[in-house]
Amino acid sequence: MTDNEGSTAAPGVFRFELLGTDGKARTGVIHTPRGQIRTPAFMPVGTAGTVKAMLPESVRATGADIILGNTYHLMLRPGAELIDRLGGLHRFMNWPRPILTDSGGYQVMSLAELRKLSEEGVTFKSHIDGSRHTLTPERSMEIQRLLGSDIVMAFDECTPWPADEATAAESMRLSMRWARRSREAFGDRPGHALFGIQQGSVYRDLRAESAERLREIGFDGYAIGGLAVGEGQERMFSVLDYAPDMLPADRPRYLMGVGKPEDIVGAVARGVDMMDCVLPTRSGRTGQVFTRRGVLNMRNARHREDPRPIDEHCACPACRHYSRAYLHHVHRAGEIIAAMLLTWHNLHYFQELMAAMREAIANGRFADWQRAFEAERAAGDIEPL
Amino acid sequence: MTDNEGSTAAPGVFRFELLGTDGKARTGVIHTPRGQIRTPAFMPVGTAGTVKAMLPESVRATGADIILGNTYHLMLRPGAELIDRLGGLHRFMNWPRPILTDSGGYQVMSLAELRKLSEEGVTFKSHIDGSRHTLTPERSMEIQRLLGSDIVMAFDECTPWPADEATAAESMRLSMRWARRSREAFGDRPGHALFGIQQGSVYRDLRAESAERLREIGFDGYAIGGLAVGEGQERMFSVLDYAPDMLPADRPRYLMGVGKPEDIVGAVARGVDMMDCVLPTRSGRTGQVFTRRGVLNMRNARHREDPRPIDEHCACPACRHYSRAYLHHVHRAGEIIAAMLLTWHNLHYFQELMAAMREAIANGRFADWQRAFEAERAAGDIEPL
Repeated sequence: MTDNEGSTAAPGVFRFELLGTDGKARTGVIHTPRGQIRTPAFMPVGTAGTVKAMLPESVRATGADIILGNTYHLMLRPGAELIDRLGGLHRFMNWPRPILTDSGGYQVMSLAELRKLSEEGVTFKSHIDGSRHTLTPERSMEIQRLLGSDIVMAFDECTPWPADEATAAESMRLSMRWARRSREAFGDRPGHALFGIQQGSVYRDLRAESAERLREIGFDGYAIGGLAVGEGQERMFSVLDYAPDMLPADRPRYLMGVGKPEDIVGAVARGVDMMDCVLPTRSGRTGQVFTRRGVLNMRNARHREDPRPIDEHCACPACRHYSRAYLHHVHRAGEIIAAMLLTWHNLHYFQELMAAMREAIANGRFADWQRAFEAERAAGDIEPL
Repeated sequence: MTDNEGSTAAPGVFRFELLGTDGKARTGVIHTPRGQIRTPAFMPVGTAGTVKAMLPESVRATGADIILGNTYHLMLRPGAELIDRLGGLHRFMNWPRPILTDSGGYQVMSLAELRKLSEEGVTFKSHIDGSRHTLTPERSMEIQRLLGSDIVMAFDECTPWPADEATAAESMRLSMRWARRSREAFGDRPGHALFGIQQGSVYRDLRAESAERLREIGFDGYAIGGLAVGEGQERMFSVLDYAPDMLPADRPRYLMGVGKPEDIVGAVARGVDMMDCVLPTRSGRTGQVFTRRGVLNMRNARHREDPRPIDEHCACPACRHYSRAYLHHVHRAGEIIAAMLLTWHNLHYFQELMAAMREAIANGRFADWQRAFEAERAAGDIEPL
């Protein structure tokens, strides 16, 4: 690893260095006291203090510079105050590199019970033990500080899909008021960053208004929220055709919850710098694997006697040491090693994808690279024997 | 690793080299074409082509020289013929070192449905898909050959506990007839070993008769079967006070299915060279961990905020990088990393135990070592904060 090569950041400072652009695609480095984040970056999700089925050193070995932690899960179990007393999330989970935490808002709305939303925040019942909790911008900032997060997300409401324009406007404006409260509660924490989140659903005027509000407040980075919530790739891309351009060019742009490899490539082409998604880890546990040629499901009986690796060009441990037949067998048998190996493969694939895009952008060949990426996928699934 | 240091075995030959004895305790090396097995040896169980929750390189890192594979599980899924076509079990599961396979007999009787035992063998229904199968000494030898096993076990009936002397005698004599058929079916396979299995329950005369029959047939190693089946440590040790002495001193002695650390130490003290047990792997998945001072259950609430490792003197990844609080959290949350880390710790502990015994025996200090081992455990559970 050459994480500190060429670093010009002052120690202890959070700073985004844009190294190159190619069309709208950008490549750069986010400097943080805990290490550099090469962009475009994909952040594996470590929901409850673990990137599921992976040791942290293995996550790092796939090429990840940063992982995401979920405020909602961690506040409920084991609790932010407990993690703080134990030295923070990095130490707790043995991941010394940067961590981005979400604000908890999205998961409260998708997982918790008896949710009640007000101007103040959200009250809810834990889906784990039924205990009652409140999340507000102030409490979300406190929890993320207790976790020791390097990149803190403003507390927002992820506008549900579909939403008519009036509903989307109301939701976005609430999020903008919460964004200001988040900024004030966050205060001044050198080396730690606070990202604002643009909302506005699929409405261009609302996206513009949201971006304007966020720029007025001022953040270290800007996320695009409220996408990848069921609207489909076409609608998402049509928003991404303009939404990133509304955000400051000198700050990282983070598209939350994306996505499939083709979504990621399309987002990078439209000027996105960071993404996160449970797809590679969750798919690893359900037997779905990502390859240059598309998706394979290792559960499928056609792999039963196939001596080939998932992808003969892949350098991950699953592909270097195991046949599809073995991976099929252990997945069918419900063995833990199946989740371990398939997750590793998927995270490796996602990180290789990001590395390839960073290189293509740096060399001014992103459009060519993107055409080759799409052609390879169009060639279809890797041939059965 | 110094696996080939000091080897005097001809390549391709299976040979037991006794390096030292201390009282009845023995230390040595089993030379095989796939590597050396340092004895006393503990064999982690890799039931269905995986030591559960571990990558094979991690199993090796704990110090294991050999693992055990289960004929019953592998014949049903994915099938011995399929594994053979894929290059054998070593290649299939990415474990290039020695593998011992059991005969399938024990697990047929404990797991399969509609079992029918006859002179010929056992017919049964698969517990996985209900398919009908037959295991005989000849078929067991064929399956173990197809798997590519380095140490093949004779097909036997593990006499159930409790059994009166007449029942135990009848069962043992059937196993001895099957032992002869196993020997004949195994044939001559240089570099591969066939072990006979002594039965006779807790009856000294039957153990002697069984040993006599096995010696007449002639095996490369001798197992002690029918123990660790519910008879308790006291009865087991009283059999082990004489049973190993009935077996040839120049061949390895393998006590099947043992056991807890204190059982292992007691067995080594009585002249046993090899053991296997699911305890460290299964316990790792249920939250139970083994330490110098006894057993801890990571599920227990007292670990909730404990910043200490499981054991500050342990060099396994779980102890080097994680607090009890973290291991408690991920175990309670049902995270796969809990099984990964706790299994690793347990296998590491078991292998360190074996290494310590080998060293103590080689230095003629086994009795002292055993007293210290027992004193440390008597000191009780590692102190809570």
